[in-house]
Formats: sequence, structure tokens, C-alpha cells
Amino acid sequence: MSDTTSNQMWGGRFAAGPDAIMEAINASIGFDKRLAAQDIAGSRAHAAMLAATGIVEPSDAEAMREGLLTVLSEIEGGTFEFSTALEDIHMNVEARLKTLIGEPAGRLHTGRSRNDQVATDFKLWVRDQLDAAEAQLLALLRALLAQAEAGADWVMPGFTHLQTAQPVTWGHHMMAYVEMFGRDLSRVRDARVRMNESPLGAAALAGTGFPIDRHMTAAALGFDRPAANSLDAVSDRDFALEFLSVASISAVHLSRMAEELVIWSSAQFRFVTLSDRFSTGSSIMPQKKNPDAAELIRAKIGRIFGANVALTLVMKGLPLAYSKDMQEDKEQVFDAADNWLLALAAMEGMVRDMSANVPALEAAAASGFSTATDLADWLVRELNLPFREAHHVTGALVALAEKKGCDLPDLSLSDMTSVHDGITGAVFDVLGVHNSVASRTSYGGTAPDQVRTQIARWKEILG
Amino acid sequence: MSDTTSNQMWGGRFAAGPDAIMEAINASIGFDKRLAAQDIAGSRAHAAMLAATGIVEPSDAEAMREGLLTVLSEIEGGTFEFSTALEDIHMNVEARLKTLIGEPAGRLHTGRSRNDQVATDFKLWVRDQLDAAEAQLLALLRALLAQAEAGADWVMPGFTHLQTAQPVTWGHHMMAYVEMFGRDLSRVRDARVRMNESPLGAAALAGTGFPIDRHMTAAALGFDRPAANSLDAVSDRDFALEFLSVASISAVHLSRMAEELVIWSSAQFRFVTLSDRFSTGSSIMPQKKNPDAAELIRAKIGRIFGANVALTLVMKGLPLAYSKDMQEDKEQVFDAADNWLLALAAMEGMVRDMSANVPALEAAAASGFSTATDLADWLVRELNLPFREAHHVTGALVALAEKKGCDLPDLSLSDMTSVHDGITGAVFDVLGVHNSVASRTSYGGTAPDQVRTQIARWKEILG
Amino acid sequence: MSDTTSNQMWGGRFAAGPDAIMEAINASIGFDKRLAAQDIAGSRAHAAMLAATGIVEPSDAEAMREGLLTVLSEIEGGTFEFSTALEDIHMNVEARLKTLIGEPAGRLHTGRSRNDQVATDFKLWVRDQLDAAEAQLLALLRALLAQAEAGADWVMPGFTHLQTAQPVTWGHHMMAYVEMFGRDLSRVRDARVRMNESPLGAAALAGTGFPIDRHMTAAALGFDRPAANSLDAVSDRDFALEFLSVASISAVHLSRMAEELVIWSSAQFRFVTLSDRFSTGSSIMPQKKNPDAAELIRAKIGRIFGANVALTLVMKGLPLAYSKDMQEDKEQVFDAADNWLLALAAMEGMVRDMSANVPALEAAAASGFSTATDLADWLVRELNLPFREAHHVTGALVALAEKKGCDLPDLSLSDMTSVHDGITGAVFDVLGVHNSVASRTSYGGTAPDQVRTQIARWKEILG
Amino acid sequence: MSDTTSNQMWGGRFAAGPDAIMEAINASIGFDKRLAAQDIAGSRAHAAMLAATGIVEPSDAEAMREGLLTVLSEIEGGTFEFSTALEDIHMNVEARLKTLIGEPAGRLHTGRSRNDQVATDFKLWVRDQLDAAEAQLLALLRALLAQAEAGADWVMPGFTHLQTAQPVTWGHHMMAYVEMFGRDLSRVRDARVRMNESPLGAAALAGTGFPIDRHMTAAALGFDRPAANSLDAVSDRDFALEFLSVASISAVHLSRMAEELVIWSSAQFRFVTLSDRFSTGSSIMPQKKNPDAAELIRAKIGRIFGANVALTLVMKGLPLAYSKDMQEDKEQVFDAADNWLLALAAMEGMVRDMSANVPALEAAAASGFSTATDLADWLVRELNLPFREAHHVTGALVALAEKKGCDLPDLSLSDMTSVHDGITGAVFDVLGVHNSVASRTSYGGTAPDQVRTQIARWKEILG
Repeated sequence: MSDTTSNQMWGGRFAAGPDAIMEAINASIGFDKRLAAQDIAGSRAHAAMLAATGIVEPSDAEAMREGLLTVLSEIEGGTFEFSTALEDIHMNVEARLKTLIGEPAGRLHTGRSRNDQVATDFKLWVRDQLDAAEAQLLALLRALLAQAEAGADWVMPGFTHLQTAQPVTWGHHMMAYVEMFGRDLSRVRDARVRMNESPLGAAALAGTGFPIDRHMTAAALGFDRPAANSLDAVSDRDFALEFLSVASISAVHLSRMAEELVIWSSAQFRFVTLSDRFSTGSSIMPQKKNPDAAELIRAKIGRIFGANVALTLVMKGLPLAYSKDMQEDKEQVFDAADNWLLALAAMEGMVRDMSANVPALEAAAASGFSTATDLADWLVRELNLPFREAHHVTGALVALAEKKGCDLPDLSLSDMTSVHDGITGAVFDVLGVHNSVASRTSYGGTAPDQVRTQIARWKEILG
Repeated sequence: MSDTTSNQMWGGRFAAGPDAIMEAINASIGFDKRLAAQDIAGSRAHAAMLAATGIVEPSDAEAMREGLLTVLSEIEGGTFEFSTALEDIHMNVEARLKTLIGEPAGRLHTGRSRNDQVATDFKLWVRDQLDAAEAQLLALLRALLAQAEAGADWVMPGFTHLQTAQPVTWGHHMMAYVEMFGRDLSRVRDARVRMNESPLGAAALAGTGFPIDRHMTAAALGFDRPAANSLDAVSDRDFALEFLSVASISAVHLSRMAEELVIWSSAQFRFVTLSDRFSTGSSIMPQKKNPDAAELIRAKIGRIFGANVALTLVMKGLPLAYSKDMQEDKEQVFDAADNWLLALAAMEGMVRDMSANVPALEAAAASGFSTATDLADWLVRELNLPFREAHHVTGALVALAEKKGCDLPDLSLSDMTSVHDGITGAVFDVLGVHNSVASRTSYGGTAPDQVRTQIARWKEILG
Repeated sequence: MSDTTSNQMWGGRFAAGPDAIMEAINASIGFDKRLAAQDIAGSRAHAAMLAATGIVEPSDAEAMREGLLTVLSEIEGGTFEFSTALEDIHMNVEARLKTLIGEPAGRLHTGRSRNDQVATDFKLWVRDQLDAAEAQLLALLRALLAQAEAGADWVMPGFTHLQTAQPVTWGHHMMAYVEMFGRDLSRVRDARVRMNESPLGAAALAGTGFPIDRHMTAAALGFDRPAANSLDAVSDRDFALEFLSVASISAVHLSRMAEELVIWSSAQFRFVTLSDRFSTGSSIMPQKKNPDAAELIRAKIGRIFGANVALTLVMKGLPLAYSKDMQEDKEQVFDAADNWLLALAAMEGMVRDMSANVPALEAAAASGFSTATDLADWLVRELNLPFREAHHVTGALVALAEKKGCDLPDLSLSDMTSVHDGITGAVFDVLGVHNSVASRTSYGGTAPDQVRTQIARWKEILG
Repeated sequence: MSDTTSNQMWGGRFAAGPDAIMEAINASIGFDKRLAAQDIAGSRAHAAMLAATGIVEPSDAEAMREGLLTVLSEIEGGTFEFSTALEDIHMNVEARLKTLIGEPAGRLHTGRSRNDQVATDFKLWVRDQLDAAEAQLLALLRALLAQAEAGADWVMPGFTHLQTAQPVTWGHHMMAYVEMFGRDLSRVRDARVRMNESPLGAAALAGTGFPIDRHMTAAALGFDRPAANSLDAVSDRDFALEFLSVASISAVHLSRMAEELVIWSSAQFRFVTLSDRFSTGSSIMPQKKNPDAAELIRAKIGRIFGANVALTLVMKGLPLAYSKDMQEDKEQVFDAADNWLLALAAMEGMVRDMSANVPALEAAAASGFSTATDLADWLVRELNLPFREAHHVTGALVALAEKKGCDLPDLSLSDMTSVHDGITGAVFDVLGVHNSVASRTSYGGTAPDQVRTQIARWKEILG
């Protein structure tokens, strides 16, 4: 037998010919069964409305609603047999309902169509994900706040270009992510409000002549109102695109924090230690700790934003109202939602578990004369030197410290005055990393008091 | 001489060696000069604050503010000489200010840095684009409402799969786009609220020890508040990503409407006639009318969403706070904003100018027994037939009409009763395209009254 | 019970806490089991080499090779139990091998690592897809050639801007797609040649000190040679990116042809009739035929190119050599490959089955004075008129025909000479759509003879 | 005066109304003037052919060819006045030619159209960029080879997950990039071969009835042959998509190397020192060296791949043959090409200039017991221990070294035998980073001899 692999699997895949190909490309039940709970909720609301408006008999509606509950429990219990021949979740549920309750099942589809039904199901599903994302973001924000609170005054390097620029505090750095994920939360909430209109009752595309009550079904399903244009209601996928956009920006934030955790975990940085739960080690290299979870989180932007691209390509240039192209919407959103929520959960876990290496952070913050700008600012502020002269004086003092093999706060006052005789002992109040961060008291600055103020503000926001 | 082209242009491009390459890749003045007005507004606000807080002398601040106005008028007047050696707009402006007012110019940069300065400038620019987009969207919505009002009862085919499904009205179709662009407007407004926090005073990344008043500069620049974390303030580009996301979804809408206009302008459809202003003709083929503007609008999603992808790639995995990568943010947003606004303006113009070919729309609406579902629905609603039987009866009547070479409303009542004897003359109330659309009175349906209700609602919203 | 759906499913998803989250984000066996055949082929080649080089005993190697065949048959037979705790396909296979053959299984991993192993498996899988794509493209090319041959002289409109520009032939239009999919084939072949280097033996990243023979395993697996740098061998995913690029361009072609089929199937165009197998109808609207397969094919570019974006985002900025981010490569390529191959197969089926509506094509080709440019060209060519004057004369003749309610070939010679007295009866040889296409004899032009020449050339190429 | 910025600039942009909007969206001369040299080369080839085939008088053709040279020199000299009213480069050139040579200019357009003309111009331009990219890639490969040669035996950490995994050599690491950029070169060459077919003479879309010689113009322009289908020739943009795909994969490589340079330049790593030319410093923080060029190169993948997305979106679902959407192709490719070539040049400059910090590399390579796997491999290879036992022994030895505060090679033989008495003095041949790398002699491994072999192979390839 040859070691080469063969194509026979593919060659055989479509052996059954065109019909097998059409079934493979056309059927959606393989993925849209994830909409089962939403589909059944929508149908139950629709049935209740059909009875309330006199379109069907109350007893028929009750039979539908009970039967649908049975179908749901079969699906949740794993005993439901999905049929590819029945193409999608709507027809699978309806066929089963027919078996269960007989003729009345045929009246359930009155005044609606698969076009408004799938739009309703999918919207409900996306809305659930927005709610889940809100919960997950809140948990992550709380984990970050706990880290910020613990280290509101731990000093660490503030980087630009991955070069130490100025000392900041650990708490301040954590709070930067609170702002980012806080904006994600705000986007999640805006998206939820905007998308919360019910497509149900738009029917195929034109509305219906049956005296349905779309406000009633909208309310029953937790929508704020029915969508106001039936063509738009069935052709709209903005809610999915906006969900993917919101998730994408959030995934950018996750990738940035994950990148920092990867770098901070390196032997060269050693800023943090990740817990064993979120990393993998080597049985023979005890110091090696691979930040697997952080790397996977960093990568999640790929598939989340990839889904955004995919759906944008699908929707580009589609005439109204419904085109079959739109069947390609769900898998993208399912995958993006699963991975976004998973990445948020993993990040929350990592943040909760990680421990900062405080001495290493402080040592790194102090290297490279990182408070030189504090000195220059002091010269401007206290001695009223023009900027250029302040920089000149600072440069000379740094050179002096470098020559002496010490840091700026280690210079003596006479060292200082040898370069500029206006300098007083007060200068030492801004030198050294702790003094430096303490001095940045402008609103939103890195001074521990400022950081604590922001922590308090966020705690109040989060309740 | 050879007809082949040569590479000498490229070959010569970097003849000057590494320094030329570095200048080419590093300098941003070639594009960030578009931020001149925002940069000067930011600096003027900063100067006023420096005086109010006693950090600089009032007379110095006044000199700065006057000098900056001079610089602005030079730039607007086209007499300003931009220097690539000075790299960016901030240094170009500051250098010129120095020439104009001398030493006090050097104090302008107190308590800020280029990092918060560029974030402020760019945010102000993006905010201006959101305002421009709002105005442009409102104009487009009004143009669509005018079309909808004119044709609230013109019938046309409602398509699924580009196949006639049911008759709808022109007004209803226009109102579908009102819903879409209305959601764009809502997204624009949410984005504006969310991004309206001032980075100014975050300084390099850590805040500053100067007693600046960030609330004062925020208010002067029309921001709702200062950004609450200095690291985040300089590293955040969410506002740009969200702008691009909002523009991208709107560009999807534009592409869909443009696609419809291209198809509707074809000789085969002839649903609309575009004005000569937004199409090009052929000197020798009088009926040929190329929908150039519609095609270009359809294509704009490319560069707008391409910019979204570009910036997402740039920001992916960037550690805090500022990295030079972020210099790649502006050109993408500039190009996307220009093209989105242009496409909205062109669409507005086309919509205003286009004329529907009402007879062709009606004829197309009536073809293919497009009211067969109305007939089936009537049988269910009025005769209480089960769906399956209603479909069977309808199929038989369609077959009869096809055999007779007529449409459903042209059948006689006896034709009708020959297939099902319960049918009464009332059935003709739902047959024919006008009856069909009139019957779709469910909320958001295509009935002209419903369409007019929605037009009225939107007119009230738009004020 | 409420009709609203709940989040309990998600809420419960990670109830087990951090360990469940880590397992969910970390384990790849859920998808990489698709690499089973490739993994086992790679291991069998490796085992044979270990024996040939004396690194393991021949009897041990034989046990490994036999045991691996058993594992493969268990997997193919569906009796293999995959374990998430064992994380990936490599460890699942190895653990089972251990159970089957005991201690010698532990020597299989000598001189290799999971890093080179997964790169090898994945490359073999991608190579298989390139081979499958080649076969599928060839089938599609043959289907197009058959259509082209049947209709080498059927006239139809040649469109620009979806407006009739000049008549072309059906065969010529089909052959345009032959060129496109022919280029796809060429890209597939280039990609296969370029990627056909074996990573096996690169080990973790640095190569190995065991005296392995990488040329031997490369040959056994059908590779042209071993990859020349071990760091690159484990960190390279170019082959996946290039596969996605090639598939993406091909999917653009599919989307263009699908768009044409959707438009051509509309009631307004009626250029083609798709077979029932690749469309869906309406039980009560006999003329409605939804081109579902065409629409789904049109949409496939979304997920295929989305995968390209996803993997590009994942790989952006990854340091060498292996990072866990790269685990996100496979699902993207799996999904893109499945859908590309499926779309090619569906397009082939549709092309085979579809029938052109020849009279409708010809009628459309003749409308709109589509041979006016032929007339103008004739005036230039035969009467040596300058272009501008030829256009003027043509315009006058078109106006005359329009006034008379006829087409250009229906004008009499005296009508012709009334506008320009140099016109002779020979002009009629280029008027009318059949004459028009027959006259376009330039290389690659639409003249039926040219089309047949190209068909013959392609038949020879395809063999 | 208010400090807020205003929208008046935008408000005024379209003050002139619809005509200004249409001109803004429709005219391409603002960017397609970059095709001037290609346009004129194409026209000159076309003119020569028109004379050779007797379609125009030789003297007229000569006048055209001379006149076109004049136009080219005017454009190159900067004296040409481009007119937006003339829309594009083709009409700008032709109008100027008319002024220069009068009536014969009108015959230049015989047997061609703007559709084949722009395809030809753009292909020639893209081909030039492929040639420039080839040259630039060759230069970068040479710079990498020089670095590899200098440091073929400098040891450094080989990373997985940014954790030290095993020692490798600097030369080996550089050669990994040689493989990557070498594949880019291969893709560039394949793309050039595939795209080198001439669209000229395809005319509007159908070919022409003039007896043109497309082989002659193809040869004159350096094409391998004329494109074989006129519809495809004008509607094809594969060459642009493939160019962008090739550039995108190359930009991924650039981003990876740039990321490494940024990390390696950090104070924590200090692996390399970038030259002052490609970094920026701080006047007061002498050790701060911002790797600006590396960051900008890292970011270039954004706009290059963004262009790929943009053009894919534009081409998605476009019917044949020419649609105005395709006018959106050029700016994307221009920008991507400019930035790819610039990034390659900057990377070449950085690689040439950078200096490795050899002691820091070696120290980092030796940390973390990085040769523990060498020890384990030795136990398997020499003592024939099963893997699991070898790992157990290694773990014990590492623990012993850790306890003693030394590295593995610093243990005595008796330390060794205290853990496993089979160990001999030969074990020290694989311990220590130099021994480790020297031992990885498998093909493509990191042993300096292997690295030198690969350097020699590449030098031969590059000639």
C-alpha cells in the first residue's frame, strides 16, 4: 500500500450525481437547527396571535403551542430526528408538529412565510448572543477592575513603540482595557436597541391580507415594535452585520491584550505569570510556560472579522427582497459568536488568574532614565525654562548619570546644580518612578489617585 | 525606441538611498495636512486653557491663538509651504507659528504631546465626517420619501430570487431603503455620541504633571468630556474602526440599491429611466444609457470596506500605548469618508432625478400569475380551506388561465366555480395587482395606505 | 411559559469553569480529525524511514506501520473513539497505536515533533484539495466547451453596463468563462508545484540530531523535496494562504457567472432555462423558477474569501517559529475547500443542464440598433470616412430607422444613400446580428469561426 | 471665533450640484494619469500595426507615433495640462494628439476601444510592478544572505510561543526569511507569466472587423500572445487580483519579520540594534530607539490586503463584459504596489544596516535549560532509553542543575551518573548551545554547516 493519500473520498463525495450536489449546497438543516428554540418561540407567539385575532380557532392554536413545546423538548432531549430532505429547521419542526397534532399544524403558517420566519429566528438568536456578550463583558470588566485595584500603585513601564517611554501604574494599564471593553459593552447595547424590531408578519415580502396583529407577536417575543416595512424586514441583515462589526472591534481589543500577555510572559519580560490552567508547560524545561490561551485569543480576530468580510461579500449588491444567497448568513454569525464569547471567557479567566511580577515591572519601569521627561517638565514648570533649554539641561544630567552609572534620582543636588544652578532639592519629588507616576495627576492620568477615582467610577457604572 | 515601458521611474525612485526610503515611509505630511483645521482648533483650545490655568501668560496664549489663525488662513489660502522634513501637520504648524510669533510658540506644547494631539485632530475630523454623513443621509432619505410619495400606489413586481413573487408598490420599495438608510443614520448618531471624548491632555501616554484643565479643552472643542484613561486615549482607534463599520454597512445598502438601478435600467427591464446627468449615452445607439453613476456607487463598498479591513489589520495585536503602525490609520479613513459621502450624494441625485416607467412596472407586476398567492390566501381566509387544498385549487385555476391565455382576474366566475364551487364574486377583490397590493394591509405591508402611514411617520421623524 | 428565548444554554456552557473554557479553546480534535488519513500516511512514511536509517528496529517499524493501518481502518470505519482530552489528531492516533502495539509506539515520535507533523498533515490535505480542484475545474471546462460548441453561432447581446453593446455569440460568451476557469486551473497547478516540499523532519523548529533521511520521507509522501529550512518549515502557512487566494479568485469567477445566470433566468431576460434539479419552483406560480443553486454559488465567495481574510489576520505579525495562533488555520481552509469544490460541482451541473433560449437571445441581440457600430466601422473601412463623420452618418441612419419603426438592416439602399451617397449594397453584409458577429474575425473575436478555433485549441489543451 | 471645526468645506464641496457630483464620481484622470507611459506605448504599438496591416497610411501612423512621443515628453516634463472634462488618460492623450497632428489622430482609435485600451495599459503597469518587485525581492534576499553568512554560527533562542524552545543560529533564522521571500519571488514570476497576454484589439468586447494583427501589437508590447477571447480580455481583472494576492502574502512575511525586529529592539530583548536611519530616538532618553520603520512595515499588510479585499468586492458578481465598477480597480493596485515596494525597500535597508547583539543572543539562547531536549534525545539515541524514561532522567538532571544554580553543561559527570549511571562523558558533546546547534545536522536543520549549505544553494539560485 502506498503512503500517499488519495482523493477517493472527494471523488466519491458526489458520486450520486447532481441531486446529491444540489442537496449538499441547498439544505441548511445541518446548521440552522441551532435556531430551533428561537423558531419554536416564534411559532408559539404566532399561534397565540392567530387565535387572538380570530384567524384560527383557539383550540387549534392551543394544540399548536402544546405540540411545539413537545417538539422543543424532543430537540433539547436529543431524540428529534432531523431530516435533510426537509431542508431547514422550519420545515423539520412543522413536519413533526403535523405528525403530533395533525391537521391544525397546517394552519400555523397562515399569514407568515419562511422569509419572515427565518429573519425572526435569526434575530432572536443574535439578540441572545448580544445578551450573552453583555454578561461576558461585564465579567471581564470586573476581573480587570480587580487587577487594577490590587495594583493601583504598582509601577511598570509605559511603552510607545515597545520602548519604555514613561512609568505608569499597573492599575492604569488595566483601566485602559476597562475603557476599551467598556466601549464594546456600549456598542453591544446600542446594537441590541437598534435591531429589536420584529420581522414576523412581513410574510413573503409584501405583508399579508390576513388580519394579523404584528404588535402582539412583537411584544410576545420581547421586540420593541414590529419592523415597519415588510420588504426591508425580510431582506435586512444589518443586525448580523452590526453584530459582526461590534464583535470585530472587541476582538481587536482582545488581540491587543493577548499580544501584551504573550510578550509579558516571555523570559525576557517576565512581567506576568499566567496560571497553569491557561498555559502549557514542558516536562523537561521547567521555566517554559507557553501562553496558549493568550495566543488563541489573539488569533480569534481572524475568524470573527473573516465572518464580517464573508457576510459583507454575500450582501453586496443583492437586489430586494429575499435571495437564496442570504442563507449563507448564519454559519458565519454562529462561528463568530461562539468564538467571541469563548475568547471573552478565556480572557476573563486569564485576567483573574494572572499574577503580576511587581519587582520586575518596577525594575523595568526605572530603566532607561524613564523619568527624564519628568525632570524636563519640572524645569519648565518650576524654573520656567523654555522647552528647548529644559531638554538641553536634562540631556546633560542624563549624560552625567550615565557616566556615573546611576539613575537620575541617584544624582546629588550638587550634581544637579553643576549643570543648572537654579535646580533645588524639590526636583527629587518628581524623580524616580513612584514620584513620576504620583505627579501625573491630570484627569485620566496615571497617578494612583486618578486610577482609584476611575476604578470607583466604573464600579458605580457596573453596579 | 522600443514600445515597451520601462522601470526607470521606479528604479530612480529610491536612488537617493536609505534616507529617501525612510523619508518616504515615515513622513505623514503628504496626507495629514488634511487635519490642519482640526489641528489648529485643538491648539487654540489648548492655548486658551494654558492661560486660564496660569501655565502660560495670557499674552503668550493670545499670541499663539492669533498666530494659529494666521497659519490657518495661510493653509486655506494655499500659500502655506508644507515641508516633508517637518514630517507631519503638527510640526509644520508649530514651526510656522514659531516664525510668526517667536518664543511663545515653544510653550504651546506644554502639557501635551503629539500622541494626544494627533488623536484629538483625527477624532475631530472623523466627527466632522459623521456630521456630514448625517446631513447627506437626511438628504437621501428626503429624496426617497419624495419618490415614495409620488408612487405610493404604483404597482411593480416584488422580487425574490429576482423572480416576481408578489406585486408591491413603488412607494413600498422606496420605503424599504428609507428603513435601511434610516438605520445608517441611527448608527451614525450612536457612533458620534460614543466617540465624543477628548484625548487632549493625555500627553504622551501617562497624563501630565502640569495643572491642565482637560474639561475646559474638551468643552471648547465640543467634546462631551475628556477621555478617562490617558493610555487608552492615545492608543484608541475605535472611533475610526466604528466609523468604517458604519460606513461599510451603509455602503452595502448603496450597493444593493445601485444594483437594482443597473438591472432596472437594462433594456430587458426598463423599470426606470436615469437622468442624463447620472448616465452616459452612445452617440449612435440612442437607446443605450449606461448607468455609470449607479455602477460606481455599487463599487464603492470595495474601498470603504477595504479600509475597514486595512485598519483592522493594522490594529490587530498592537501593544499599548502608541505604535507607529497607527500612522496608517488616516489615509484609510480619509478615502472611505470621501467616497461614502460622494456615493451618498450621487445616490441622492440619481434618486431625485430618476423617473419610474409606471406602465412597464405594472405590466411586469401582472405577469406570471403574480396574484396566485392572493387567490390561495382568499380561499383559506374566506372559504376556510386548508392550505394544501387552497394550493391545489389555485394551481388548477392558474392552469385554466394559462390554457385560456389570460390572467387570473380575466377568468369568469363560472370558470372559477368550475374548479371549486364555493368561490364567490368577492374573489375578484383580491385578484389583479391593484387589488393584491391594496389587500396587504398588515402593519408594514405594501398596501398604499400602509405606505402612506410610514411616509408620514418618517416625515415627522425627519422634521 | 414565556415565548422569549433564554440564554441558559450559553450560561451553562462554561459552568464547569476555567478548565472547561481552556479545553474548549485549546483542543483541536473536533476539527483536525479530518487530517487522520494524512497523519497516518505521514507516520507510516516516518516509521519506514526510521527503520531504513537504523534509528529503530525494522520489526518495531513494521509494527508501527501495521498498527497505523489498523487505526486508519478504525477511523474510516467509524469505530474510533476520539478523545478531547488527547487534544489533537496526532495524540489520538499515537495513544491508540500504543494500546494496539505497546512500547514500540513510543519510538514513532523519534526525530520529529508535533510542529513538523501538523505542517506535513495539513500540507498533504491541502495538496489533495488542489488535486480535487483540478479535477473539478476540468469537468467544468468540459461542460462549458460543450455549451460553446452547441452554440458557437447563436447570437446574443454582448453587454457593457448591462446594456446591449454589440452582438456576440453564445459560444463566445461561454468561452470567456473557459479562459477564466482555465486561469484558475493554471493557478492551482502553480500552487501545487510551489507547496510540494516536505516539512517532515524539521522537528520542533531546529531540525534534529537523529540521522533521519528527510529525502526518503519526502519521496514516500509524494513531495518533490524536503523543505530547506526547519524554522520556515514549521512556521510557514503560505501554502494555505495561496490555496485560499487561488480559491478566492476562482470564486469571483463563479460569482460572476452565477450572477449572469440569475439575471438571465428572470422573467424579463428569459435567456436560459435552468434545470429543475438546480432550481426550485412554486406549486402555484408555474413560471416562477428560483435559481437557488446559482444564488448559493454566487454567495460562496463570501466564506471562501472570508477564510482568506481570517488566515491573513491570524498570520499577521506572528514571530517565528510556531505560535498557537496557527491552530486557527485549519477550519478556515477546510470550510473554504469544501465550499469551493461544492460550488464548482454545482456550477458544472448547472452548465451541463441549462438550455439557452435561442430565439430570446437573438431577439435581444437585435434590439437597440446593436449593429450601429458595425455600420460606422464599415463607413470608415470601406468609404474611408473619418470616425467623426462616420458617426454622424450612422446617427442619421439610426434616426431614420427609428422614425420608420424598423431596424438598420430593414432600411433600403435608397434610404441609405439619402443620408450618404457613397453607401453601397455591400453595407448589408455587416448589418443584422448574424452578419455582425460573422464580421468580428480578429483573433479572439466573436466570429463563429474564431470561437470554433478557440474551442479546438482548448480541447487539445484538455486532452 | 469658535474653536470647533466646521463642515463648510464639505458643505461647499458639491455646491455646484449634480454635475459636480457626477464629475467627481465619474472622472478617473486624477489617478489614471499614472498610466500615461503605458497608454502611449500601447497607442504607438497600435499605430505601427495599423500601418503594417494597411488600415491607415504609413505617413499617418508615423505622425501618430511621433506625436505620441511628444505627448509623453510633455507629460514627463510636467508641462502637460490634464483636463477633468476629458475624463481619463486615454482621452487626454488623444485630444492632445489631435491638437498636435490634426486629422490623422482621429484614425488612431480604429479597431480598438477604451475597454481594451485600459485593460492593456493597466496590465502593462502591473507587469512593471512585478518586475520592480522582483528586483526589490532579489535585493532583500541578498541582504538577508549577507546577514546569514555573517552569523551562520551565532547562537540565539529558537522560539515557540515567544518562549525559548531550542537554540538556533542567527544564520538559520535569517535563512527562514530567505525561504519566505524566495517563495514570494516565485509567485511574482508565475503571476507575470500568467498575465502576459495582450488585451489590445479585443475592442469594445467582441473583437473587430478591421484586419488588425493582434500578434504584432502583443509582440511589440512584450506580451507573449494576444488574449484568446475578446469578452474575457476586457472583463478580466485576474492579473490585478493575483498581483494583490501575491503582494499580500509577501506583506504577511514583512509583518512577521518587522514584528520580530520591534520585539528584538525592546530594552528587554536587545537582540538587535537598528541603524539610526531606520529608527528615531529621544533627545533626552539616550537608550530609547523607536523602530519606526519596522512598525510602518508591519502595518503595510493593512492597506495591501485591504486593496485585495476592495477589488474582490468590486469584482464580485459583475456580469460580463465591462461595467463601470471596474474603474475602481486602479487606485487600489497603485496604492498596494507603491507600499509593497516601499516596504520591501525599507526592509532591505533595515536588514543591511542592523547589527545583531551576539552576546545577548547567546545568553538568551542558553537560559531556561534550552538544551534539555538535546540531553533527552542523547539518552534515547545513545542509551536507547524509551522516550518517557529519557524525559524522566532529563527532568531530574534539570532539577539538579536548578538546585545547584547552574546550567546543564556545568554539571559534572558524577552529577550525571548519580541520576542515571549509563551516562558517559560523551553527553557533554550535545550540551551547551553551541553543541546543540552543531548537532542538528538533519537536512535543513540549524547546524552551521547546514546553514552554510543553504546559503550556498541560494547564492547559486540568485546568480
